[in-house]
Amino acid sequence: MPYKAPLSDFRFLLDSVLPMHRVAATDMFAEASPDTVAAILTEAAKMAEEVLAPLQRQGDLHPARLENGVVRTSPGFADGYRAIAEGGYVAISADPEYGGLGLPMAVTTAVNEMIAGACLSLQLNPLMTQGQIEALEHHATDEIKTLYLPKLISGEWCGTMNLTEPQAGSDVGALRTKAEPKGDGTYAVSGQKIYISWGDNDFSENICHLVLARLPGAAEGTKGISLFLVPKRIPDADGNPGVANSLRVVSLEHKLGLHGSPTAVMEYDGATGWLIGEEHKGMAAMFTMMNNARLGVGVQGIGVAEAAFQHALAYAQDRKQGRSLSGVIASHPDVRRMLAEMKAETFAARAMALDLAIALDLAKATGDAAHVARAALLTPIVKTYGTETGIAVAQAGIQVHGGMGFIEETGAAQYLRDVRVTAIYEGTNGIQALDLVGRKMADGGEAISALLDEMAGEAEGALADAIADLRSATDAMLALDMSDRAAGALSYLMGFARVLGASYHARAAKADPERARLTQVYLTRVLPKARADLALAIAGGDDLTALSDADLAA
Amino acid sequence: MPYKAPLSDFRFLLDSVLPMHRVAATDMFAEASPDTVAAILTEAAKMAEEVLAPLQRQGDLHPARLENGVVRTSPGFADGYRAIAEGGYVAISADPEYGGLGLPMAVTTAVNEMIAGACLSLQLNPLMTQGQIEALEHHATDEIKTLYLPKLISGEWCGTMNLTEPQAGSDVGALRTKAEPKGDGTYAVSGQKIYISWGDNDFSENICHLVLARLPGAAEGTKGISLFLVPKRIPDADGNPGVANSLRVVSLEHKLGLHGSPTAVMEYDGATGWLIGEEHKGMAAMFTMMNNARLGVGVQGIGVAEAAFQHALAYAQDRKQGRSLSGVIASHPDVRRMLAEMKAETFAARAMALDLAIALDLAKATGDAAHVARAALLTPIVKTYGTETGIAVAQAGIQVHGGMGFIEETGAAQYLRDVRVTAIYEGTNGIQALDLVGRKMADGGEAISALLDEMAGEAEGALADAIADLRSATDAMLALDMSDRAAGALSYLMGFARVLGASYHARAAKADPERARLTQVYLTRVLPKARADLALAIAGGDDLTALSDADLAA
Repeated sequence: MPYKAPLSDFRFLLDSVLPMHRVAATDMFAEASPDTVAAILTEAAKMAEEVLAPLQRQGDLHPARLENGVVRTSPGFADGYRAIAEGGYVAISADPEYGGLGLPMAVTTAVNEMIAGACLSLQLNPLMTQGQIEALEHHATDEIKTLYLPKLISGEWCGTMNLTEPQAGSDVGALRTKAEPKGDGTYAVSGQKIYISWGDNDFSENICHLVLARLPGAAEGTKGISLFLVPKRIPDADGNPGVANSLRVVSLEHKLGLHGSPTAVMEYDGATGWLIGEEHKGMAAMFTMMNNARLGVGVQGIGVAEAAFQHALAYAQDRKQGRSLSGVIASHPDVRRMLAEMKAETFAARAMALDLAIALDLAKATGDAAHVARAALLTPIVKTYGTETGIAVAQAGIQVHGGMGFIEETGAAQYLRDVRVTAIYEGTNGIQALDLVGRKMADGGEAISALLDEMAGEAEGALADAIADLRSATDAMLALDMSDRAAGALSYLMGFARVLGASYHARAAKADPERARLTQVYLTRVLPKARADLALAIAGGDDLTALSDADLAA
Repeated sequence: MPYKAPLSDFRFLLDSVLPMHRVAATDMFAEASPDTVAAILTEAAKMAEEVLAPLQRQGDLHPARLENGVVRTSPGFADGYRAIAEGGYVAISADPEYGGLGLPMAVTTAVNEMIAGACLSLQLNPLMTQGQIEALEHHATDEIKTLYLPKLISGEWCGTMNLTEPQAGSDVGALRTKAEPKGDGTYAVSGQKIYISWGDNDFSENICHLVLARLPGAAEGTKGISLFLVPKRIPDADGNPGVANSLRVVSLEHKLGLHGSPTAVMEYDGATGWLIGEEHKGMAAMFTMMNNARLGVGVQGIGVAEAAFQHALAYAQDRKQGRSLSGVIASHPDVRRMLAEMKAETFAARAMALDLAIALDLAKATGDAAHVARAALLTPIVKTYGTETGIAVAQAGIQVHGGMGFIEETGAAQYLRDVRVTAIYEGTNGIQALDLVGRKMADGGEAISALLDEMAGEAEGALADAIADLRSATDAMLALDMSDRAAGALSYLMGFARVLGASYHARAAKADPERARLTQVYLTRVLPKARADLALAIAGGDDLTALSDADLAA
């Protein structure tokens, strides 16, 4: 589908709203000047618009398929992937020592959004590789790094994450895949993994699986899990893909959307693997990958939101109905309301994601605990608000199209079908909310309080009131036990996100009065929902506890 | 998919919450005693559960298709349709003079919900026929009635509605199909119509199209539109299907969902038609059909909501994850919250739809203008809240399933794909909201005020406050000009629906203390959203007017 990268938003947010200058002021990211960043984004935009956007429908119409054990990808995907890899976009932020550019995550985040908006099913491939690179950078031995990172960063090889098993979804600790030491420093990995995004393809030289498994005698639950790198082809002495490992794609899933992305059931049958990180510390290593992926998945939602918005806007500005002045439906109040909300929510989510990326960059460059905590706090919010925005905007895009929205040929429905999974994978949005009211409040609310102080500093009027409401709700949430917190967790997260989103909008309006009109839409139509969210957040779960199984089944 | 009809809800609502006894007290519906109604619903439930529910996946997996101009329906659909027709369920409320049972719309509504919950794509067929029967009963000559109604009521023939043309969607007045008098009392109808649900099939003896078209010299816009009955086969002297008429199915749409329902592009090429109602009064006649269909479509949303809820509940009560007491995800607070909200919203929507049906019955039986106005007021609310509930519950059903929700084989996604169109067809929900704040407020708010008085009579606490809020918002809405009303129309409708839904729940809790736990869920989690809705409803559209086309495209 036609797609125009939101370059002006990226530039405006990075240059005028968010503290990107602080990133560029660090030694680590000194090269990330506004002009350099703009040049990179402009090139990536060109690729997304010209090379990748035409693939989006191809992936949907011609799903990846399994033929005699080999995954055949959708028409054009191999070329599209090559453009991403050759442009250097697989891993912009990766370590220069291994061939990366060492650029800030803020740049990666903008590039990821553009690629996702152009062709989500293909973008999931480099997103998985990015997470793997991050995990290996942090936890692998130098030998593994030297062997694998250059290939992954160049895009010659790609990476997957293998967590889920049929009985172990959100409860990763229930997994049963085993790893037996072979005595030569490697391990024999055996078990079945499901939902492996891009578990195989026909354009990568090698595919590197990060697999969670249990060593013999390991404890039950998450404390007995270790992480293994299991390549499809075992690298030979020269580091080239050698003999085939004992693993295979059993089947591909038939999914609601993302048809271009092969979602595999993987079987490991004594496959050779290398331990990554310490024994039994696999979850910690995996979380490095997951946190990266959570930002990345939030950004997928935002990319699709942008694309679905543009698609609906083009239709609404072309479709004539009724007797309005301009004659097109974009001028009908209820349609204009939908378009305005779509645009305003997408902008807020984009600002939030870039802000999180900048926090990650500042944390990395300075080691400052405040930045680390800020990034950790924002991660579940960005994942959830980004993906909920993607779904809501795609839903509205269908509605803007009227009857045409239900007809697959228009493409409006594909955005919803594709983006729907983003609220589920990398930890469902419910899990994100539990993370926010649990782990991310374990500091007694310190990180939240710091963020609220920052937001309150510049706020006026309705926004200032909303920030005060959020502060009260946070205090009340901290006073609840975990069961009551859990009942209100998603409402708390959404209320938090809407107040935070309004604060970016308010800053945008101050930085550029031309932006104030969109800000007013957000303050009028989105911010008021936060009050209901926050009231519900702290309502506790007595009503849910009282409702019996028999009541539900009645 | 497995489906269990909500018989206990129907019985409870009709016997203990809603004024069904007033319907049974009229001469017209004297036969509709609680026991008779219960017996009919029990039989219909059995059919829905045993015969129709197994067809739901068949329709999705094996879509209706066009072969050499003939529509081939999904496997089993012919048998399913036959069960509906032979059970007498096509038109329970139709005139006994022509073979109907003359039962209340309340009974039809409950039966329609069960059939829709069991197999939505098939249910759309008799729903269209019901609307056609209603239109013919009100507007056709005795000759036409005698010829067509018995066949339609028995289900031997079926009916469609033909409004939309490529350039004329929500703006029906833009249609171009022509009807030329042939001099023998019939008309030659020519033009192309799109989105014709069940435009053809391979199990009906005849298919009767109600077609909106323009007579020569007719005025532009909706005032120049007339309604014609155009049968696929022209009845012979004995009333049997005779020679083929000059019409054909050009193509079937490839849709997001409802694959079992063939959505046709129809071409009329001088097809013989009969005028229904007066010349140039086609819209009035069509609205008879549309209003019936709007209740029917709202009920489709409710049927799917019930089915999607049951499907998610079954999964959640079976799926083990984590360390909760029972070990299943239904006991995790966030999952339980979703299930509880799904159940509570479905109940509220069901009560609302039955209340509208009862108002229609009382209007028909007594001719009382207050009942007529009440039914007219509730129609857009039920259409919108029923379908939005269907979509929201189906979305939540996917989320409850986690990763399995994205896999088509589980069936969770089909509910969303199928129900999505209900927010669009028979007038988009945006159009419904405009109807509510426009035509339905043209009495200066009298009908709304009467309904609010009724709701306030029994209300306490938060509900009483919410009703007062709704009253204030209504007054404020009446003071706005139409453009500002339009900007807040959908918010007003949703706020109204949530307060109204709470009032049914409150009455349910009074009638049966065992129901109070579900009521508490609704009062805690749904009612508070009404405040934000109503504030937004009256916020006007200044922010939208200020936002320029350039702002949207920026």
